[in-house]
Amino acid sequence: MFESAALGRSCSNKEFEEKAPQLRMRLFNAQLQCIERKIPVLITVAGLVGSGRGAIINLLSEWMDSKHVQNHVFWLVTDEEKARPWPWRFWRQLPAAGQTAVFYDGWYGEAMRRRCCRDVGENEFTASMHRWQALESGLAESGMAIIKLWLHLNKKDHARALKERQENRSLVHFSPSDKKIAADYDGMVSAASRAIMLTDRDNAPWSIIDAADPNFRNLSVVKAIIAGIERTIAAQDARAARLKVLESVPDVEEDARESLVSTLDAIDLSSVQAPEHYQKELKRLQKEIYQLSFRAYKKGISSTLIFEGWDAAGKGGAIRRLTAGTDARITRVIPISAPSDEELAHHYLWRFWRHIPRAGFITIYDRSWYGRVLVERVEKLTPKEDWARAYAEINHFEHQLTSKGNILLKFWLHISPEEQLRRFREREAIPWKRYKITDEDWRNRDKWPEYARAADEMFLRTSTEEAPWHVIPAENKKHARLMVLRIYRDALKRALR
Amino acid sequence: MFESAALGRSCSNKEFEEKAPQLRMRLFNAQLQCIERKIPVLITVAGLVGSGRGAIINLLSEWMDSKHVQNHVFWLVTDEEKARPWPWRFWRQLPAAGQTAVFYDGWYGEAMRRRCCRDVGENEFTASMHRWQALESGLAESGMAIIKLWLHLNKKDHARALKERQENRSLVHFSPSDKKIAADYDGMVSAASRAIMLTDRDNAPWSIIDAADPNFRNLSVVKAIIAGIERTIAAQDARAARLKVLESVPDVEEDARESLVSTLDAIDLSSVQAPEHYQKELKRLQKEIYQLSFRAYKKGISSTLIFEGWDAAGKGGAIRRLTAGTDARITRVIPISAPSDEELAHHYLWRFWRHIPRAGFITIYDRSWYGRVLVERVEKLTPKEDWARAYAEINHFEHQLTSKGNILLKFWLHISPEEQLRRFREREAIPWKRYKITDEDWRNRDKWPEYARAADEMFLRTSTEEAPWHVIPAENKKHARLMVLRIYRDALKRALR
Repeated sequence: MFESAALGRSCSNKEFEEKAPQLRMRLFNAQLQCIERKIPVLITVAGLVGSGRGAIINLLSEWMDSKHVQNHVFWLVTDEEKARPWPWRFWRQLPAAGQTAVFYDGWYGEAMRRRCCRDVGENEFTASMHRWQALESGLAESGMAIIKLWLHLNKKDHARALKERQENRSLVHFSPSDKKIAADYDGMVSAASRAIMLTDRDNAPWSIIDAADPNFRNLSVVKAIIAGIERTIAAQDARAARLKVLESVPDVEEDARESLVSTLDAIDLSSVQAPEHYQKELKRLQKEIYQLSFRAYKKGISSTLIFEGWDAAGKGGAIRRLTAGTDARITRVIPISAPSDEELAHHYLWRFWRHIPRAGFITIYDRSWYGRVLVERVEKLTPKEDWARAYAEINHFEHQLTSKGNILLKFWLHISPEEQLRRFREREAIPWKRYKITDEDWRNRDKWPEYARAADEMFLRTSTEEAPWHVIPAENKKHARLMVLRIYRDALKRALR
Repeated sequence: MFESAALGRSCSNKEFEEKAPQLRMRLFNAQLQCIERKIPVLITVAGLVGSGRGAIINLLSEWMDSKHVQNHVFWLVTDEEKARPWPWRFWRQLPAAGQTAVFYDGWYGEAMRRRCCRDVGENEFTASMHRWQALESGLAESGMAIIKLWLHLNKKDHARALKERQENRSLVHFSPSDKKIAADYDGMVSAASRAIMLTDRDNAPWSIIDAADPNFRNLSVVKAIIAGIERTIAAQDARAARLKVLESVPDVEEDARESLVSTLDAIDLSSVQAPEHYQKELKRLQKEIYQLSFRAYKKGISSTLIFEGWDAAGKGGAIRRLTAGTDARITRVIPISAPSDEELAHHYLWRFWRHIPRAGFITIYDRSWYGRVLVERVEKLTPKEDWARAYAEINHFEHQLTSKGNILLKFWLHISPEEQLRRFREREAIPWKRYKITDEDWRNRDKWPEYARAADEMFLRTSTEEAPWHVIPAENKKHARLMVLRIYRDALKRALR
């Protein structure tokens, strides 16, 4: 794979001085277009020890408008990072619209190093590469420019670079594993070539750079970045054109589904009775959950609970009964409403990654990432190709949340339209509940069938084995609350077995 | 201090049911006003073990609009928190405009516990209380509603509450120090009374709540919160009226200072010569800094470097020479430009706290918190009473940054108006530098004397012993860069001695 990158090509200083100004200008203009078009740019600078990753980062901060460039080195892992799914540490540094993030080694560094040191087997390494590839595809499809550079050296040049470093004594600052990797040229090259092979895609391709000569390397890197940005801009234009065409085409699929009976229609709400001994049973469940959740805390098992459902279905009340049964020190409730501008400038899952629980902790989302395929779909806030892609993205995301035995529960609180109307009227009569009913709620109510259809497809496509949907008949609030608590208690018990 | 709170007063269920609806409505309306007026609300719920802090947090999330309420428990300290000045963990959770943050024990918890266990002496405890009081004053003056509750029990009721807990086995989840505190009623009450005495101020008063009876406690808490919000609203109105009056009064002080010679005028820029052997000296300094900064890293000494100065004075170039001499893994450059809306919704120092370095790391700010007393003052973006208060706030902030031997360096890059004009023209002639010159730069240039006067006052009031200003003659860029690097090298050497 690296043959053509190991030729040791060079470029004289004179030639560099001639070519640099024009390339610099092109790079700068490409960045400017990203800012104007609100394209986030992710540049991963990976490579062998001594290939000049640091020098590239310095070059980029000089040649680009550094006000919009952030460099990130994923070196030491903090305990806040250790206690969450591994991708969290990268998600928190992803670039916002118009911004450029330069990742030193990115998510490949650790993975390649561990493979080189034989800390992971071939299968695990392959699986992790597939996961990164899936993440990159999702980001690219959401409009991010993804540029991945591998700075290569042949064996002789690599040995020379190491020798220079040792003389400068800079290697003293590396960890033992860094030194091991530096010494194992073949192992690292083999890990890199496998990683590149597994993650090289049209929308997130690798550029392999001959890094023996700094001038040649620098020019090649800048060319690769310009090409990557131009590719993304072309994709953005193509997408805009496609969306315009699609707008004018009627959605046959939607119409065809109209006549189907939805999952929710099939639920019998009438038979639900008010539970006897509600208070006693509630207290008992809360006490059980309190004890179980502390055992889960000690074992580092986190819980993510999300609540969706009709307006006035009783999400808030159910959540309060839950939090009354857990310790405030390990529980957080995240209400999801309009995103902040920092959140809007990122991939739509970014704002949820922000809040996912640490090992042993509990996060309760009052509404969630499913807004993408519910309100954003029904209200046409998001083009179909984006919300349609979200099912797979969400399944992928949830798979990461449920790794290592962590708990993820998804509740849909279900009521009938008649019951909703009764509750709306009741809320309007109570002074401190009146604010809960807005014009928007009445509008949403008018779109009941569209929401039911969207919910139906959501159940179908995101009820996975590890994270099924729990549809809770909520016509009787007390019944619904006990049911939610029982499901969480049982999930804790299962996880602690 | 706690006599009147230890009477064990109670309120019957009947009385509670009568009074609750009206109080709930008043609390809700008070919150609504805070949302409309963009007032951030900070409620600290502190108290003895068993006094019902958790119950209060649950009550508030039920009675207030929980979409705008966030609870924070400062329980486990993460290593990201440990590696920064202690207040960082609280700053990151401060409420944004219109939001309510409920702090379980807040910054008082740890402090009181340590005092109770005799882990800190009287003097250190007093000093820390003064620091929290200063922070609270700053926040209150910036418009935050600060409400502090101490939930009290007399010795008998406390013993009864503990016994109940032990029977419920919930105490098993406490750490040994929690148990120790629970057992030492007198020690905790003494620490609390001292803390309350030292931090009780008009703009951030304590409410001491008799917590023996839950009904009485809940009503008292809600009343205290309503009163705190009303106090803040009145202060906001008073401030608006005051600002209006001040607007029409000419600023005599400003005119009087007009004729003075500024610090910057006194600097002789003409005598600075281009350094000989620039490249060689630069490399030498960078190498020295590289080695020293790694030694500082290993010792956990962090560096905060900030750059201010005239447009085109060469801040970016100097910063790049610095970063070329430090390891990318431990260095971050934070360019300061327009704040995001999340940043705008917080105290103006919040966005700088966000980025301060971990122990051993280096953060370089390209422009800084001094914007408050430079551009915001000159362009009249901030009322005088706010920027005038900022000098003290900044000194307090910087004192925290320089604690534990950490390095803080403040550079002002100084050039003459003639040199600036030459550089503006030069930039306009180079395609990839043209973007650096905007209409705003030309406008700023017209206000040179105003900026010089603002800079002058800034030097005067914020050149502290631990963090003096370094005014760098930057008429010759190379000279300025070497000077910056030398100053940093010397600071590292001093810190490592």
